[in-house]
Parts: sequence; C-alpha cells; structure tokens
Amino acid sequence: MAPALILVDIQQGLDDPWYGVRNNPDAERNAGRLLTLWREHGWPVVHIQHLSTNPESPLYPGKPGVPHKPEVTPLPGEPVMTKHVNSGFIGTNLEQWLRDHQIEDVVIAGLTTNHCVETTTRMAGNLGFNATLAHDACAAHDLAGLDGTHYTGEQVHAMSLANIASEFAEVRSTAEIAKQFS
Amino acid sequence: MAPALILVDIQQGLDDPWYGVRNNPDAERNAGRLLTLWREHGWPVVHIQHLSTNPESPLYPGKPGVPHKPEVTPLPGEPVMTKHVNSGFIGTNLEQWLRDHQIEDVVIAGLTTNHCVETTTRMAGNLGFNATLAHDACAAHDLAGLDGTHYTGEQVHAMSLANIASEFAEVRSTAEIAKQFS
Repeated sequence: MAPALILVDIQQGLDDPWYGVRNNPDAERNAGRLLTLWREHGWPVVHIQHLSTNPESPLYPGKPGVPHKPEVTPLPGEPVMTKHVNSGFIGTNLEQWLRDHQIEDVVIAGLTTNHCVETTTRMAGNLGFNATLAHDACAAHDLAGLDGTHYTGEQVHAMSLANIASEFAEVRSTAEIAKQFS
Repeated sequence: MAPALILVDIQQGLDDPWYGVRNNPDAERNAGRLLTLWREHGWPVVHIQHLSTNPESPLYPGKPGVPHKPEVTPLPGEPVMTKHVNSGFIGTNLEQWLRDHQIEDVVIAGLTTNHCVETTTRMAGNLGFNATLAHDACAAHDLAGLDGTHYTGEQVHAMSLANIASEFAEVRSTAEIAKQFS
C-alpha cells in the first residue's frame, strides 16, 4: 500500500502573534510540495485540524484562524480529522483509518514540530507505523525553559528532530522524501 | 481518588554504557522517595517495565538489566506493566487500569526523560489525566543532533521539561510533589 501523508495543524491561526516567533518560514511551502506529490500519485492524504478548547486560542472553533492555510487546503474527498489535543491519534479515528486502509508507511509534516507534530510522530512510531518526518515541512515557536532559558524556535525544532530521529521515526527533507517515494 | 504514581523503566540495564552518559544521578533516589510516600499513604502505584525487542538492548528479555533498580523494587500486589515501545500507554492496559480505578491525577517519574517518560507524559496529558512530572526523579542521556551537534543529557532533559511544561503536564520537584499531595 502507498504511504499516507499526514498534515498536522497547518492552519491560518498559527500565524497569530499569540504563538510567538517561529523558525522555518518555508514549512508550508514544503508541506504543499508533498501534498502536490501525493495528489499526483493518488496516494492517501489525511488533514489533521486542531480545534482548541481554550477560548483564547486562535484555533478555537468559529475563529478565522481555524481553516487550513492555502498551501494545503483539503480537496473534497480528502479526509479531515479534527482533534482537541496534541496527538492526531487521540480522540480521532486516525489509527483505525490507517489500519482499515492497510497503510504501514506514514509521512508526517506540519505545525508545530515540538507540540502536535512530535506527539503525533512519537505515537505513530510507537503504534508500529513506519514513520517519516519531513523536517523542513515543520516549524516550531520560541519556548521558555523552566529556569527561564530562552530557546529559539530553531533550537526547539532541532532538539525535537534529534529526539524523533533517535527512537520514533526517520527524519528527512521534503526533497529526500520525494526521491524516496517516487 | 488518590493520585497514581507511575514509575517508568527504572531498570538496572539503564546503567549500561550502551546508553551513554546521563544527567541527574539522584533520579532513582528521588523516585524512591516518591514511592515511599505513596506506599505510606496507600496510594496507587504502577511500575512500568520495558522489555526491548532489540536483542542488543540491555532491556531485552532474559538479560540481567531487566529487573527494577533497588530503589523502586515492586512489592507484591503492586501492578507491573510491561511494554515494548516508549509510551507506557501503548500495548499495556495502563489507561484502562487508571479509568477503572477512577484515577484522574497521575505523577510520573523515571527513565529516560526525553524518551519513555516524555512520551508517556505527553499521552497522559492528551488522554485527559491531570499529569505531573517529577523532574528531579528523571534523567536523560546525551544525544546527537541531526547536524552532529552534541547535546548533553542535561540539555536534553531541560528541553524535555520545557516542552512538557508548555502543553502536557505540571513539572515539579519531588519535594514540591510531596508537599502538594501530603
């Protein structure tokens, strides 16, 4: 079976200053490249959409930030799964959908690297899927450490990739993934 | 209902040089302190034990590294759940056990911060439990970044705590947790 592309939370509200400064402005464009490739091959695509339970969040239901960004707008017939927590596997039928379609390989991209993408990728690997993370189709925001250390989005992103690569998934660029699966 | 203490992979094999250099040599002693407190109160304790599927691993079934460390040796009657992946919630009945016991609050500690502890903690929070991570009862090993950057165990540990505190769980010291729940 063909690999599934899982796009996590690539929604307009992620541009809101509420989230702070982020790295990798090319993330959406690279995710869009993967989506184009998947559509060209007729491979399965799943769009994960976050609906926050926090009324302050730009992703709270009804807010203008909820829709997907233009680079990855879902087409009719492509599954869109909504979630309320970080993992795309919790409170959704993502795992069952993948099993029903006998999918073993998943490629993951989206926002943000260390939160929803990393949690989804950790679970994908632990659930037994052959997971690949498209590192240049992800991005992370700045983060404060417990001791007040300021981590830039790039530092957060890099550590997230190191953790993911060490145990949970292959970590590759969009170009490498395009070559691997074409 | 009382909070449950979930001790993750505090096993003898984690001392094997196979894992590299780590931070926080006090992790086991602090985990032992929490365990003593929980036993004194008669609160629920779950021991998670990793059984690796990799014959090279010190945690492969039958190897001398599989048993728990002396600071946290399970007592008869305390549940011991074995797992084969990072998350204590995948391939075990941990979630069902917590629900059956109507447990809402979980305190997590163990090895290693960025791998099995972090994955278990991310899932605990996402599954709706009120999760607290005992940061000084955890430890992490050195890690290589994708670009070859060498991260010390302390750096890995600190970023893990920052990620967990930002979305998934409260992050507190053993002393703070003892005060909070006593």
